[in-house]
Amino acid sequence: MVVYLNWEKYEAFVKDVFMAYGVPEEDAEICTDVLLDADWKGIDSHGANRLRPIYIKRIKAGIQSATTDWKVVKETPTTAVIDGADGMGQVVSYHAMKLAIKKAKEYGMGMVVVRNSTHYGVAGYYTDMAAKEGCIGASGTNARPSIAPTHSVEPKLGTNPFSWAMPTDEEFPFSFDAATSIIQRGYIELWDRDGRKAPAGTVVGADGGPMTEPSEILPALVKGEAALAPLGGIGEDLGGYKGYDFATIVEILSAAPQAGNFLSMLSGLDEEGKPTAKYHLGHFFIAIDTEAFVGRESFEKTAGEIVRELRAAKKAPGSDRIYTAGEKEHEARQERAKTGLPVNKSVQEDLIWLRDDAGLTQYKFDFEE
Amino acid sequence: MVVYLNWEKYEAFVKDVFMAYGVPEEDAEICTDVLLDADWKGIDSHGANRLRPIYIKRIKAGIQSATTDWKVVKETPTTAVIDGADGMGQVVSYHAMKLAIKKAKEYGMGMVVVRNSTHYGVAGYYTDMAAKEGCIGASGTNARPSIAPTHSVEPKLGTNPFSWAMPTDEEFPFSFDAATSIIQRGYIELWDRDGRKAPAGTVVGADGGPMTEPSEILPALVKGEAALAPLGGIGEDLGGYKGYDFATIVEILSAAPQAGNFLSMLSGLDEEGKPTAKYHLGHFFIAIDTEAFVGRESFEKTAGEIVRELRAAKKAPGSDRIYTAGEKEHEARQERAKTGLPVNKSVQEDLIWLRDDAGLTQYKFDFEE
Repeated sequence: MVVYLNWEKYEAFVKDVFMAYGVPEEDAEICTDVLLDADWKGIDSHGANRLRPIYIKRIKAGIQSATTDWKVVKETPTTAVIDGADGMGQVVSYHAMKLAIKKAKEYGMGMVVVRNSTHYGVAGYYTDMAAKEGCIGASGTNARPSIAPTHSVEPKLGTNPFSWAMPTDEEFPFSFDAATSIIQRGYIELWDRDGRKAPAGTVVGADGGPMTEPSEILPALVKGEAALAPLGGIGEDLGGYKGYDFATIVEILSAAPQAGNFLSMLSGLDEEGKPTAKYHLGHFFIAIDTEAFVGRESFEKTAGEIVRELRAAKKAPGSDRIYTAGEKEHEARQERAKTGLPVNKSVQEDLIWLRDDAGLTQYKFDFEE
Repeated sequence: MVVYLNWEKYEAFVKDVFMAYGVPEEDAEICTDVLLDADWKGIDSHGANRLRPIYIKRIKAGIQSATTDWKVVKETPTTAVIDGADGMGQVVSYHAMKLAIKKAKEYGMGMVVVRNSTHYGVAGYYTDMAAKEGCIGASGTNARPSIAPTHSVEPKLGTNPFSWAMPTDEEFPFSFDAATSIIQRGYIELWDRDGRKAPAGTVVGADGGPMTEPSEILPALVKGEAALAPLGGIGEDLGGYKGYDFATIVEILSAAPQAGNFLSMLSGLDEEGKPTAKYHLGHFFIAIDTEAFVGRESFEKTAGEIVRELRAAKKAPGSDRIYTAGEKEHEARQERAKTGLPVNKSVQEDLIWLRDDAGLTQYKFDFEE
């Protein structure tokens, strides 16, 4: 059963959890802010559900460090390479985008790449940081292999999100944050629970054809006998090579400017095939100051007019609304401000487990029996 | 019947055609180089077939000017806004990317946007310019409305290409140049001639469903009663909103930094609905110097290793090869160096028409009767 958490209490709890496992307070605030950004936006695949199985589990397993001794290893007026020292991906990424924005404010543009990092949360958190400062923001990261190249059945590329945000004259920016695959694994788990099929074309099987049965897809993905299809689907008919190319662009931008790991190196398995290896992920962060062109106000007005004209386009019969990127997330934020954060049974169990494991006895949850 | 043209003679002819209609010699060389880039790469939708119906027709109709009095209207260390003065899009775009590269070489990054421009040819020409100089290149342009937003049936966004090129340690760069729709109109014309159907999901009809019959699609597109689907297809099932968002990113980057025209303003129709209006297209050009990170050689090595690992992935049964972006174009170039440029009957007629209209009596074609 879904219950609704009080935001203030949940936020304090998440921060205390990070600190309990060794994350310094200032860093714990960043990690909390990134995690809650997904919760607020309704991106339930990257919020509360990730706290235990991704971040805390990996800290406990020694795959990533709770402290983040990041340092700039090369810098020019507009660019920098930062080493994330296998710490918290969110922390180094926050500082990386901060630096990119600072450079953009000074020189017009900034691009910072990060090496030796870990899972950085929702890409849109960082691009939104740029948009809030009147900058165009772009970011991406590589990840564990899961997308098969066009004409291949082997998971090679990560779901490699390519996020872009642009300031507008509205209350919220144009904010695009999506994997370059059609779907992510989390959807398949959801469909499995709900007894639904995966749309044909989202997952490619070992025979090169579509797989649609979630109960068959999930074990096949684990064994590498199925892979996610890139945006555009399997083969070339619906432009699958374009999604594959976008995933490759993100892979190159994430790894090549910092001489980092890529593709199969990111499997998370050590030489003996055990899931204990450090990830050494790479990310990139770009900020471009709109003030450096015709000015922020003018940019925001044009961008706003574009999204408004798109929303006002003629609707398909049976569709009652046309959205632009970031709009659904903006509405989720408003809705959830009223309701609190909805969490399902599995997340409730995670929170209790974390409370007990971390010894945060001051917290009691309404949903406890 | 397809005939093969001698490259040297064809190149000289194209340049003479541009000059005959008033394009200054230096500019005619750029226009020729951009047009032939498509011909060499096998992108037959953007090469010889475009010379008469796009460029020369528009110059003759006064929609664009043969001379290009471009000027920089704003500049910072890394950015610039250029006015294209309704001249040749290729000319202002060439100079815009040149300037972006110059800024990248000096400051690490450069971004130049262009206003009041016209059709700029293949986007990949400009990003390849960056890659040849050891820079990451990105470019895009807005265009006449043809893509319907997700949940809409109205053509709103241009096919808005989003091109990226990266230098590698191979003979040719990673070079991605594609529309953010699944297909372009040219494909439908081709399928119509060949008696083939359009794959379901590439074109959306007024009822919100797929159209597959080219002979019905073509008149419907003209009347605005059909639209191209974004990459990812119709609706949200296969991620169509992601392609729609990429098209929107290109629309915003093309128009907002230069306060330019966008969406329905780019229909090419004047107030009375006549196809005589100037386009006032916008483009953007980004160059990022790989030397500003861990160094060009290192970048190229990593990028090269990524594309090689992708090509070596396990093939789908029945597929005999996995390509990376730019590879097919590289091979077309090698093949066409041997064969000459293949041109069909319709292009042959165009060339004869242009020769006669321009009075270039010194040219005789082998295919003339």
